[in-house]
Amino acid sequence: MTTTPTHLTGNQEALRAFLDRFDVFLFDCDGVLWSGDHVFPGTAETLEFLRSQGKQVIFVTNNSTKSRAEYKKKFDALGIPSTVDEIFGSSYSAAIYISRILQLPEGKRKVFVLGESGVEQELRAENVEVIGGTDPAYRRDFTPEDYRRIAAGDSELIDPEVGVVLVGLDLHINYLKLALAYHYIRRGAIFLATNVDSTLPNQGTLFPGAGTISAPLILMLGQEPVALGKPSQAMLDAIEGKFQLNRARTCMVGDRVNTDIRFGIEGQLGGTLAVLTGVSTRDDIINGPVRPAAYVDKLADLLVAKQ
Amino acid sequence: MTTTPTHLTGNQEALRAFLDRFDVFLFDCDGVLWSGDHVFPGTAETLEFLRSQGKQVIFVTNNSTKSRAEYKKKFDALGIPSTVDEIFGSSYSAAIYISRILQLPEGKRKVFVLGESGVEQELRAENVEVIGGTDPAYRRDFTPEDYRRIAAGDSELIDPEVGVVLVGLDLHINYLKLALAYHYIRRGAIFLATNVDSTLPNQGTLFPGAGTISAPLILMLGQEPVALGKPSQAMLDAIEGKFQLNRARTCMVGDRVNTDIRFGIEGQLGGTLAVLTGVSTRDDIINGPVRPAAYVDKLADLLVAKQ
Repeated sequence: MTTTPTHLTGNQEALRAFLDRFDVFLFDCDGVLWSGDHVFPGTAETLEFLRSQGKQVIFVTNNSTKSRAEYKKKFDALGIPSTVDEIFGSSYSAAIYISRILQLPEGKRKVFVLGESGVEQELRAENVEVIGGTDPAYRRDFTPEDYRRIAAGDSELIDPEVGVVLVGLDLHINYLKLALAYHYIRRGAIFLATNVDSTLPNQGTLFPGAGTISAPLILMLGQEPVALGKPSQAMLDAIEGKFQLNRARTCMVGDRVNTDIRFGIEGQLGGTLAVLTGVSTRDDIINGPVRPAAYVDKLADLLVAKQ
Repeated sequence: MTTTPTHLTGNQEALRAFLDRFDVFLFDCDGVLWSGDHVFPGTAETLEFLRSQGKQVIFVTNNSTKSRAEYKKKFDALGIPSTVDEIFGSSYSAAIYISRILQLPEGKRKVFVLGESGVEQELRAENVEVIGGTDPAYRRDFTPEDYRRIAAGDSELIDPEVGVVLVGLDLHINYLKLALAYHYIRRGAIFLATNVDSTLPNQGTLFPGAGTISAPLILMLGQEPVALGKPSQAMLDAIEGKFQLNRARTCMVGDRVNTDIRFGIEGQLGGTLAVLTGVSTRDDIINGPVRPAAYVDKLADLLVAKQ
C-alpha cells in the first residue's frame, strides 16, 4: 500500500497490460462516471469498450437514496447503457444483510429508516417491514408533547416491534426522526447504516452525505453503526455471493481512496484503479495512507487502450 | 482531580463548612434545578436559603434555544425566583463573543444561524445581523435545484456578507440548513457553536443536544467549532467580565462532569459541586477522569445546612 501508484493516462501499453489482468470491473459511480447530473465525456464509450473486450462491469454505489431500479433510470437518463443486475447499491446491500444475515427475533423485525425511497424499496423487496423513511407522518415539527410521548414510550410513536434502525442519506432529516432513532437504539435496536460517506459530490462541489445523518446518533450514543456500503467488506461479500467473483481477476475503480480504494484493497481484489474526477486528489492518491495500484486522470483515458 | 469527591448529603457540619468557602454559586439548570418541565423538590427554597446567606447565585446554561428574557419566563413558570441579570446563557455568551471579541471586517458581519429564537434575540440585542435561524424561508425541503444554486453561489441563497456560522440547538434542523452552513464555512465563514452538548435532558431521558447539530458539519469539514458554552473558558471569561467574580470564592454546581465540573476546574474556581439528578452517575463522579470537589444526591440536600 506504500508503493507509488502507476499513472496509466496516455500509456497505451501499460493500459492494455493492466486491463488484461481483469475479467470484472467494479465501478463507483459519482465522481467516476458522472458528477451529479453531469456525465463525464466518454463514460458510455469506455464502458462499451470494456464490455466489447468480454469484461463484466458492475456498478457499486454507496448512494442509498435510490433503489437499483431507480438507479437504472439515472443511467438511462444520462445515456449510459446498463442493466438492473449490473447495479449494486448500499440500500440493496443493507436489505440483503437484514433479511438474510441478521436473525431478527419474532416481534422485533421492523426497521426504522432514516432515508429516502430507495432504502424502503429494497427492504420491501426482501419482505422487511419498514417504518419511518418517506412516511409524511414523520416529516413534521418536533413539539413539546413529543418529549413526553417518546420518554413514556407511547406506542403510536415508538413501535415496540422495531429491531433495527437503518440510516442512509435522508434529505428530509429532522429532529423528530433523530430523537426516535436514538430512542429505538437505546431500547435495543441494532444500529445500521447504508454507508457513512461524509459528503455527497454534486455540481462539482460537496453536499452532506449519508454519514452526516449517522453523525448525530454516533455522538449521542458513543457507538458506531455497522455500515453496509463501501468500504465495508459486508458489501463485497454480498457482491461476491451474487456474481461468483474471482477476486484476483477483479478490479475496483473509484475516486475516493478511503472508501473505494480501501474497499478493493481490504477485499484483496487483484487491482484498484483511481480516477481524479472526484473527491481524492492526485496528492491523496500518490502520498496518502491508502493508495491504488494505478490511476488515470479520468475514466475515458482507458479508451487509449482501444486505438 | 484524582482525589475522591466528598459526599456532603446528610453531613450538616461538612455542608456548612463547604458553603462558607464561597460568595458566588454558578448553577447549571437542566439536571440541577429541574429536568425539562419538572422542578426538583426544594429548588426554590435552596436558592432562597443561599441568597439569605448573602450568596450570589448565577444561572449558567448551555441552553441556546432561549434568550435570557425567555429563560427568565421559564423560571417564573416553574416558580423559581430569579432576575434576568442572574441568567447567563450560551446564546448570550456567543453574542458577546461575536460583537465584542471577533473583529469582523466590513461586508462580512452577518451571522448564519442554525438555532432557535434565543440565539437570534441575543445577537440582535448586540446589533448583529442574523440570517437563517427561525426564518420560515429556510424551513423547506431541499430540491434538486438547490444543488445547482448553492454550487453556483446564487446570492439569494448564499449571502456573500456572511462571516460567521453559529450553531446551536435547532429543533428545525434540515438538509438545506446543513448544506448552507457547510458552504458558508467552506467560503471562509468562522465556525462557532453556542455549545456542543451531545444530549438534552428532558422528561427523565435524553434527546439530541446542540452538539448533534454541529456533528454533521464537523464530519464534513474535519474541523471543530469554537464553542461558547460550558466547558469553554470563553464563557467563564464573559461571566467574570460581567460579574467581577473572585474565582477563589466561586463554586460551580452541575450535573455533568465533562461540561459543568470541567468548566469549574479549568476555570480554577474555588470549588465544584456535583448533583446526581442529571446526566453523570455516582460512578462517573467518583471514578471518572474529571471529579468535583464534592457532591450531593440532589440540590435540596444543601438545605440540611440551614436547620
